[in-house]
Amino acid sequence: MSRTDRILMGPGPSNPYPEVTEALTRPVVGHLDPEFIDLLDEVNERLRLVFQTGNQLTFAVSATGSAGMEAAFVNFVRPGDDVVVGVNGVFGARMCDVAGRAGANVVEVLEEWGRAIDPQRLLDAHPNPRIIAVVHAETSTGVRNDIAPLGAGKGDALLLVDCVTSLGGIELDVDGAGVDIAYSGTQKCLGVPPGLAPLTVSDAALDSLVAKPQSWYLDLNLIRGYVSGDGARAYHHTAPISMLYALHAGLGAVLEEGLANCWARHRACGDELHARLPELGFGLWAQEGHRLPQLTTATLPSSIDDVAGRRALLERYGIEVGGGIGPVAGKVWRIGCMGHTARRRNVTLLLGALAELVADPP
Amino acid sequence: MSRTDRILMGPGPSNPYPEVTEALTRPVVGHLDPEFIDLLDEVNERLRLVFQTGNQLTFAVSATGSAGMEAAFVNFVRPGDDVVVGVNGVFGARMCDVAGRAGANVVEVLEEWGRAIDPQRLLDAHPNPRIIAVVHAETSTGVRNDIAPLGAGKGDALLLVDCVTSLGGIELDVDGAGVDIAYSGTQKCLGVPPGLAPLTVSDAALDSLVAKPQSWYLDLNLIRGYVSGDGARAYHHTAPISMLYALHAGLGAVLEEGLANCWARHRACGDELHARLPELGFGLWAQEGHRLPQLTTATLPSSIDDVAGRRALLERYGIEVGGGIGPVAGKVWRIGCMGHTARRRNVTLLLGALAELVADPP
Repeated sequence: MSRTDRILMGPGPSNPYPEVTEALTRPVVGHLDPEFIDLLDEVNERLRLVFQTGNQLTFAVSATGSAGMEAAFVNFVRPGDDVVVGVNGVFGARMCDVAGRAGANVVEVLEEWGRAIDPQRLLDAHPNPRIIAVVHAETSTGVRNDIAPLGAGKGDALLLVDCVTSLGGIELDVDGAGVDIAYSGTQKCLGVPPGLAPLTVSDAALDSLVAKPQSWYLDLNLIRGYVSGDGARAYHHTAPISMLYALHAGLGAVLEEGLANCWARHRACGDELHARLPELGFGLWAQEGHRLPQLTTATLPSSIDDVAGRRALLERYGIEVGGGIGPVAGKVWRIGCMGHTARRRNVTLLLGALAELVADPP
Repeated sequence: MSRTDRILMGPGPSNPYPEVTEALTRPVVGHLDPEFIDLLDEVNERLRLVFQTGNQLTFAVSATGSAGMEAAFVNFVRPGDDVVVGVNGVFGARMCDVAGRAGANVVEVLEEWGRAIDPQRLLDAHPNPRIIAVVHAETSTGVRNDIAPLGAGKGDALLLVDCVTSLGGIELDVDGAGVDIAYSGTQKCLGVPPGLAPLTVSDAALDSLVAKPQSWYLDLNLIRGYVSGDGARAYHHTAPISMLYALHAGLGAVLEEGLANCWARHRACGDELHARLPELGFGLWAQEGHRLPQLTTATLPSSIDDVAGRRALLERYGIEVGGGIGPVAGKVWRIGCMGHTARRRNVTLLLGALAELVADPP
């Protein structure tokens, strides 16, 4: 079995924390074992802390981040509902697809890729939408969209936010920002392998759950009987035990460090990259003032070919960075510094490797 | 961190193979890393061998077995399609729910729980259904339903089979039996933690894929661009890397032993339990001739209380068995012997523990 150990500096997955890898080896127990129910409760409580929420329904969907997106829409969209979606990258566009399949009348608010969406445009897009949805940290562009003004101005709408790449990496205050539905992924700033989608739903939003959503697997009416409650838990589907061990450990690492310290660590890595990449001839593509520290989109110097350059990073140094997608495919790299990857030494390594590539292009 | 090591003799999860636990610690790489694509191809090839199929579209859905069920229905059911479903336990009933949410006109063929469904009744239930669906190994009752006569008599219908508890545990020949769509779970007879749902689709069935199913996450039109093909793989969602390492190793263990040997090992455990449980005052609940070796439903002797008995097994011996559900809740136990649990020593241990419980009831 190959044990190639990459430095994962793409758009995710990131390198898991060592305690996460260890947790994966914890002996499997049953999904109704009292010890496992205790662990599940702890995972959910830890998720509340990193989401900064008191939401009772806070847990990890048993699938990857995109299933979190699907759970967020199918449980709240009824056919014909008006849903405003901000689109300035792949994941906003994906939201439109997912909402449309649930029968939504999607009102797209388009912004140029690489730029942030003006929250006022989202608020003005429809007088009384069912949902206003936006991606907090666009993994495809490295842009942060503002959330708090949406919570302040949403009126009766539910505010639905994609936090896949933001959770644990930049400030996110679900309750403070008035977010009703938020989902994330494990493989970004939480430093856990991909496979689960943390999800939180405000108590107010719970009142408008679709009674029988099109997805049985993601039906929150059914899932809540297993993931929360004081009494016996009702079996819905078999929980992904080992991945929940991993998430438990990853959240433990984040909370032991302290959420603010964890954000600061991601910020320090991003600041260093943003300061020094231009010295090597790379440009910073995302809009200034809205650049994510945990995901940098860098335009390539003319001497570096996209595919050959990434192959050289992978083969010479074992470093993965991501290619650009959409309008900047072939022109930018997506450089992630998330989770356990977000350390000074990885930034130093990458900058050193890039300097060597620039000096001696592959 | 607790490291309680249970002997998992309930309806799943089973104990993982040691090489599976080790595989979970393999360093995470990216989902587009060439090394990972090679591994993904190997997983899919190994799945073809255990499913006994040449189906090109064979892979693991990135979620648990019930999501495999949902993928199987939502990609083939159009609103108003007639779908015949055999129901003699929880998972047949779940199929009706899932198919109904996809818009199917569900034709239920009911059989008493604990008894097998006569295949002819399924064939006679509708003159020209879109799909005939049945559970191969009903985890809720310990009953095996016959598949091959359905494949022989299905006509133009697609044959859809739940193989969650059968795959790797009893004979299953997807191509030989004329199965068009089959899904499974990792946490039963494959000896892998829960989290993935192996799925295989016949080339003929691919011709009738729904163009835009209600689920984006489970859309096979999109997923096939990532999980198979000769050229570059198109990103759909981030693959659950570590769980795929685990499945790769679990399938490796099964294939190294030999599929027929693996079935024989499960059979030997089941035969031993079936022979000796009655000596201790337990009854065998499932219909004779259709009893699963890997999941035994045993009625309790009058001296043993369901909840107190299971608690004593868990606390005194660290053994998990499952309670009955549906009409036999409180009256039967579900005793699994699957995956790495399916060993002589675990059968001997359980029988010894049960003898002690009978002699000294909790």
